[in-house]
Amino acid sequence: MRRLVQLLLAPPSRFARLLVAEKRLTCDCVAPENLAEHLPVFIDLDGTRCEGLWAIVDHLEGAYADHPLAPEDDEARRESLRLLDWAMGPFLENVTKRIVYERASQRYTGAAARRAPDMDTVRTGREALRAALATLGASAERNGYLTTRDCTLGDLAVAAHLSAIDYFGEVPWTEFPAAAEWYMRMKSRPSFRNLLADRVPGQPPVSHYADLDA
Amino acid sequence: MRRLVQLLLAPPSRFARLLVAEKRLTCDCVAPENLAEHLPVFIDLDGTRCEGLWAIVDHLEGAYADHPLAPEDDEARRESLRLLDWAMGPFLENVTKRIVYERASQRYTGAAARRAPDMDTVRTGREALRAALATLGASAERNGYLTTRDCTLGDLAVAAHLSAIDYFGEVPWTEFPAAAEWYMRMKSRPSFRNLLADRVPGQPPVSHYADLDA
Repeated sequence: MRRLVQLLLAPPSRFARLLVAEKRLTCDCVAPENLAEHLPVFIDLDGTRCEGLWAIVDHLEGAYADHPLAPEDDEARRESLRLLDWAMGPFLENVTKRIVYERASQRYTGAAARRAPDMDTVRTGREALRAALATLGASAERNGYLTTRDCTLGDLAVAAHLSAIDYFGEVPWTEFPAAAEWYMRMKSRPSFRNLLADRVPGQPPVSHYADLDA
Repeated sequence: MRRLVQLLLAPPSRFARLLVAEKRLTCDCVAPENLAEHLPVFIDLDGTRCEGLWAIVDHLEGAYADHPLAPEDDEARRESLRLLDWAMGPFLENVTKRIVYERASQRYTGAAARRAPDMDTVRTGREALRAALATLGASAERNGYLTTRDCTLGDLAVAAHLSAIDYFGEVPWTEFPAAAEWYMRMKSRPSFRNLLADRVPGQPPVSHYADLDA
């Protein structure tokens, strides 16, 4: 069986889970023995071991080319990769860390959390999130998905972050209907099922988290 | 002329400068108008705009395939991409941020710095750096460069970080001769010249920074 070593609320891990499922593959998701491990790690059937997103994306796109996740068109491809970099870079720093990493235990994100969330930090994260949702909504209205009419790497990377934030009910969907409509379509994809089944012990998701109509 | 929008002491920007030079290209390096921009941004001769490392690496490897920087061999390729992900992920968090981002101005890293560096943070960063140098030295002794006998994406990504740390004289080279020997070879590459000419106003590098014999 394929294996993915990952953390429940860490967006790179969630992105890897989506990638594997979009490639129509199944894998065992296991927690790391040590929280300091470099994650996620994907181990394929033949023992091929990919550590980190660069290696995982490269391997999956090369070995399972039937369901490509990077657009062929040059411009769309650059935009999809821009979104991937943006999600795992600036968005992680400015939004996800300030909301999810403040509220979730290190056991599920890998990042040291404070004992009590710092509400000023959370507020700054929420502001940055609003700006991001406006931009994402505009892209989805223009393109269907964020970069093309299909779901690509960029959509999956951004959705990996938003799903972790949404777990805590921290996404103001009603204010951003275009982004909400796009995310609803992401949530309805079979690849999302695994994420929507997430339950962190002692910290259940908000009620709409796994609801495909809300 | 090609352009690279970048920050002097930000490792992703330094990595992009190395990539461009390893492809035997020249470009104008310019600072961003706004420190909150998603960097680095590479603009090619025909106006092709690549924002972030995923898009830049993909574009340069595709458009300038004469000097490939990702190994062809599958295992070496995965290891090279692992190092790239590790440098821009765990190493950035555990080492670079704790040393460079504590000591340098936001103007040159893009990250908010404290008024005075927190020495406990710097010390934790130095410890993590020592562990990393031991591992890197062992890889260089085994492979020549970090993953193969040639310099690949992984070497450039790691060297981009170490060069920023070395600017402040914070790399204990004498304790790690194998890593030092590898870095000396990296420094001697023509692609490194541009980095070694860096001078942050009011904060000159340590004397050995640009010395090819030390």
